[in-house]
Amino acid sequence: MLLSSASRALAAAKPRSPEPFAAAATAVLLRRQLAAGMAAAPASSASAAGNREAFRVAVTNTLERRLFYVPSFKIYGGVAGLYDYGPPGCAVKANVLAFWRQHFVLEEGMLEVDCPCVTPEVVLKASGHVDKFTDLMVKDEKTGTCYRADHLLKDFCKDKLEKDNTLSPEKTAEFNHVLAVLDDLSAEQLGAKIKEYGIVAPDTKNPLSDPYPFNLMFQTSIGPSGLSPGYMRPETAQGIFVNFKDLYYYNGNKLPFAAAQIGQAFRNEISPRQGLLRVREFTLAEIEHFVDPEDKSHPKFRDVSDLEFLMFPREQQLTGKSAMKLNIGQAVSEGTVNNETLGYFIGRVYLFLTQLGIDKDRLRFRQHLPNEMAHYAADCWDAEIECSFGWIECVGIADRSAYDLRAHSDKSGVALEAHEKFAEPREVEKLVITPSKKELGLAFKGNQRMVLEALEAMSETEALNMKSALESKGEVEFKVCTLGKDVTIKKSMVSINMEKKKEHQRKFTPSVIEPSFGIGRIIYCLFEHCFYQRPGKAEDEQLNVFGFPPLVAPIKCTVFPLVKIEKFEVVAKKISKALTAAGISHIIDMTGNTIGKRYARTDEIGVPLAITVDNTTSVTVRDRDSKDQIRVEVDEVASVVKEVTDGQSTWADIMWRYPAHTASAAEEEEASET
Amino acid sequence: MLLSSASRALAAAKPRSPEPFAAAATAVLLRRQLAAGMAAAPASSASAAGNREAFRVAVTNTLERRLFYVPSFKIYGGVAGLYDYGPPGCAVKANVLAFWRQHFVLEEGMLEVDCPCVTPEVVLKASGHVDKFTDLMVKDEKTGTCYRADHLLKDFCKDKLEKDNTLSPEKTAEFNHVLAVLDDLSAEQLGAKIKEYGIVAPDTKNPLSDPYPFNLMFQTSIGPSGLSPGYMRPETAQGIFVNFKDLYYYNGNKLPFAAAQIGQAFRNEISPRQGLLRVREFTLAEIEHFVDPEDKSHPKFRDVSDLEFLMFPREQQLTGKSAMKLNIGQAVSEGTVNNETLGYFIGRVYLFLTQLGIDKDRLRFRQHLPNEMAHYAADCWDAEIECSFGWIECVGIADRSAYDLRAHSDKSGVALEAHEKFAEPREVEKLVITPSKKELGLAFKGNQRMVLEALEAMSETEALNMKSALESKGEVEFKVCTLGKDVTIKKSMVSINMEKKKEHQRKFTPSVIEPSFGIGRIIYCLFEHCFYQRPGKAEDEQLNVFGFPPLVAPIKCTVFPLVKIEKFEVVAKKISKALTAAGISHIIDMTGNTIGKRYARTDEIGVPLAITVDNTTSVTVRDRDSKDQIRVEVDEVASVVKEVTDGQSTWADIMWRYPAHTASAAEEEEASET
Repeated sequence: MLLSSASRALAAAKPRSPEPFAAAATAVLLRRQLAAGMAAAPASSASAAGNREAFRVAVTNTLERRLFYVPSFKIYGGVAGLYDYGPPGCAVKANVLAFWRQHFVLEEGMLEVDCPCVTPEVVLKASGHVDKFTDLMVKDEKTGTCYRADHLLKDFCKDKLEKDNTLSPEKTAEFNHVLAVLDDLSAEQLGAKIKEYGIVAPDTKNPLSDPYPFNLMFQTSIGPSGLSPGYMRPETAQGIFVNFKDLYYYNGNKLPFAAAQIGQAFRNEISPRQGLLRVREFTLAEIEHFVDPEDKSHPKFRDVSDLEFLMFPREQQLTGKSAMKLNIGQAVSEGTVNNETLGYFIGRVYLFLTQLGIDKDRLRFRQHLPNEMAHYAADCWDAEIECSFGWIECVGIADRSAYDLRAHSDKSGVALEAHEKFAEPREVEKLVITPSKKELGLAFKGNQRMVLEALEAMSETEALNMKSALESKGEVEFKVCTLGKDVTIKKSMVSINMEKKKEHQRKFTPSVIEPSFGIGRIIYCLFEHCFYQRPGKAEDEQLNVFGFPPLVAPIKCTVFPLVKIEKFEVVAKKISKALTAAGISHIIDMTGNTIGKRYARTDEIGVPLAITVDNTTSVTVRDRDSKDQIRVEVDEVASVVKEVTDGQSTWADIMWRYPAHTASAAEEEEASET
Repeated sequence: MLLSSASRALAAAKPRSPEPFAAAATAVLLRRQLAAGMAAAPASSASAAGNREAFRVAVTNTLERRLFYVPSFKIYGGVAGLYDYGPPGCAVKANVLAFWRQHFVLEEGMLEVDCPCVTPEVVLKASGHVDKFTDLMVKDEKTGTCYRADHLLKDFCKDKLEKDNTLSPEKTAEFNHVLAVLDDLSAEQLGAKIKEYGIVAPDTKNPLSDPYPFNLMFQTSIGPSGLSPGYMRPETAQGIFVNFKDLYYYNGNKLPFAAAQIGQAFRNEISPRQGLLRVREFTLAEIEHFVDPEDKSHPKFRDVSDLEFLMFPREQQLTGKSAMKLNIGQAVSEGTVNNETLGYFIGRVYLFLTQLGIDKDRLRFRQHLPNEMAHYAADCWDAEIECSFGWIECVGIADRSAYDLRAHSDKSGVALEAHEKFAEPREVEKLVITPSKKELGLAFKGNQRMVLEALEAMSETEALNMKSALESKGEVEFKVCTLGKDVTIKKSMVSINMEKKKEHQRKFTPSVIEPSFGIGRIIYCLFEHCFYQRPGKAEDEQLNVFGFPPLVAPIKCTVFPLVKIEKFEVVAKKISKALTAAGISHIIDMTGNTIGKRYARTDEIGVPLAITVDNTTSVTVRDRDSKDQIRVEVDEVASVVKEVTDGQSTWADIMWRYPAHTASAAEEEEASET
């Protein structure tokens, strides 16, 4: 269950802090400053913000112009929060997902499943989404236009802080405080603040309704009767949980094992912002690793235990310190990270993201603060990537304990358990509660069954307390929830004993460790991390480059005939055929543009290598980032390109093996995009 | 737009035949018999049907038991028409999609896009789905239970034909006729038949409502206001059409080019049947190839023109003949297939399906009959695959002319056009219609605009007819649809002339040729085509095998230590590591089961190769289908497996290079599944 960024606490199953304006707020304040990157660089100046803004405009303009992504249904005016990936974006996404499959599913022998998006209500009722997956909304009382309540309050406070020079120090502190606790305000508290500040609808200045919860799931109806409500899944995880029993069997009834799923998820955001980072439909890749709660060691932990990277433990956040480089092996052994399996996945996620091209210095693993975590969670770390919007949660790695399996077990009545066979039978002391049906029937008549079930459902502590009370007093008052009242239980009605039994196996609900990847967010951050500009030939001209690693580059190679003559075109086609046979995505550019212009066009979509056909026996191969060129035989060139783009060799390796090509002035010309 | 099988004509934009009980019915009757496989094997005997049924039970039992797919949300009782792919099914699906990308997107340089499933109403209004994507439904008048009207009538007639021995020849003919024309009945006609036969609700025997259309799209609401209706897309094609302008630009404003999309589509079927073949959510892979309507040649047509395979042209169907082997080059040159591009895709689809493992003798390309095709379609062929349910439409390949782009152009007001620049300006004769506003205003006052627009909208023929009428008679009656009446046009009101103009380019709406793949259906047919049984060791025992080609096999290889000793386990792990590095999906089976049992288990999920570690320097490699075994050095084995599973070598090639392994009796034992 990927949280949908620091700006909104996931409502499902997470109790709201009852007193956000009180003491706990310090931690929350810190958390918000950290998300904005304010703690690391204390006085985030206006000019830095301006630079970030300008950088973002350069990146997103290039992305939209080159069709990496575009607003969906543009010819009809678009729909907020829905985007199409165009050809290069779609190829990047396919590459990221293929690598995810290789790095996680194949490497770890995970069980991949593929479940539908349409989900019946009962499943999401059990998971808590029907009741709690909400944001607080206010309506323009006259026009009915909807707003996110916290957005309006946030915008108001920010605006005051930025533009009102007459603010008293007290007011400044107050607005800062409101911003800090925003995520934790109840509907009533938000409503009170909106009233107090006189906030009105931004477009019309009309008064606003009180805030009320709006469920973020897209609702629909399954089948023709209109009587079976369904939702578009808000995450892919539930499809795995409900299949636990079959998957456990498939795995030979052995733990640990992991199931994985890649698929679309849907959230009907009230007012989507921030481009690809907050959308109404997105691709999630989720792993549910099922493990014995009493043994969360991981057999391959040694493979990652020497890794060092930026981590941001709870302690550091609460004491106002910065993220720091930690050794993951040490973090686990010192207890900073709860267990080996969680640590193993943190390490694997680090490798995954950096191999994709995420800058390791702008990636940190931040531990959830106590008030961010669901009550059942054992520990939770987010992989946060810094981009022009601040630090963005891109992967959530949570130890969710047995919560999800228990919830579905309770709702469905199907036991979702694992069992461990003992090598030798073990003698255990076990509490046995034996109600007397006869006595209960005489005393409670029609209510007999409810009393009996309540007795059997007692916890060990409750039962032992009752036992001692019955022994000392002979009778005891006992609350039966299903009757809504207390009844008197006498000694004759129930026997409670500790008995010794031989057990051959242990039954338990597995813990779930869940790494959940927001693929669109990772891709957007990757775009920002790979983007750079370099001077063109014309004065003041800046050429855009996406320095994608070959692994994710949408197109691995371009082929250009240097000039438009038939013998070069024949060679270009021959090379193209060899590249296709080798499975290398490429484009041929037969336009008569200058070679410099053609290089600039392909640099802008991040093509790592370009082949210029300037001869019928050998050709020039050029590297995007260094602009170095080598000469390679026509028959050899496809395999050289494959070597580099498959990651078997680097460009530097290749440079040694082939003669350098000294470009003529004409070829080196770097012309601007027309 | 993949039609959803022969049993339901796609309502969208396809006008219903007004008189299905009349003459055209012969063709329809044929079509239905053909779908059931009755024409090819005239007297489809009860025992053949029984065999098909038994075969299907064997396949689907194996598929569900080995978790290829299972009903979704099973612990909650499931939802009709929703299925999960478990690990092996999910892997097969991923392999099919990866090959689809290689075979179509990469090989043809297609522009792949990725659009959301959530779609605003306006888009599906333009495409016709909101108004016409319906099935006819009846309700139990007391309980409200819904049924597909045609299903009830079909079941009634079939039941009568199968079980009522007292039927007169006239009645028999009548029921057969109803079955034949079922797809083409209007709501009124269906309702009349249901009344006439006294058909009641199957479960309750209650009376039924009149049939009425039920829209098959899942409806939802976008954003919080409740005022923006949306639907889950019923196909992926519309996302491509609305992006035509950007994609055309991306392709350098050149035709032809193709865009492609893989994604989920949704149809809220009234009563899903037939397992994976008719589901409520499924993966489509669609190609929209945009081409100049005046030049539908294809540069690579020669690459497929020598292929020969089963085709079933309209003519053959109408004259009661069978499908026959045709050469696709000849079929195009003789005009059986409308154009080269359509023919090229038919050939490419043939290669795609047969390379996946579809039996070429149970695959045919059936041309749509005139009454099956949308009125705008130029030609349409379905790739139909025979399975135990009959001939199933798995790929639709249609020349949809300019219909879709025009529909979105009209609705959005954005021109979705291509242009061809002429090398030399061309002198063209062009019809110019110039209404006189003044005269029209005097004659028609408030209706002036409607008359004027109708005049300007005249086709060339209409205008020339009017011109000659005006010249001979001075006035003419003219129907203005927007006024709903005829008006009198006088000579003074409009001038119509052919004028010579120089044109530098030609603007036109491209034609769309659309191959649309139902991935789930292809996979299900593939399961049936690859499944076989062979005798086990025990008497009467049948072992199940999925003979998948390596390309689609969910797991390429298994590794077994022959016996449970450490030195073999070390070797097995070493081989596993080498296989992972080579990107080969595999499983290690460390259980102590007999080797025969382990072979049987992996044969059942279609693993092509098994490595038995019976030595620390060399191992045994066994082929699934022939059960032949060879000995290969430990260090070499991963690359040998890769060679075969990548398709560079066949098992037969490999057999020559390595010594055969003569199995001991213990190893060859083929034990039954426990």
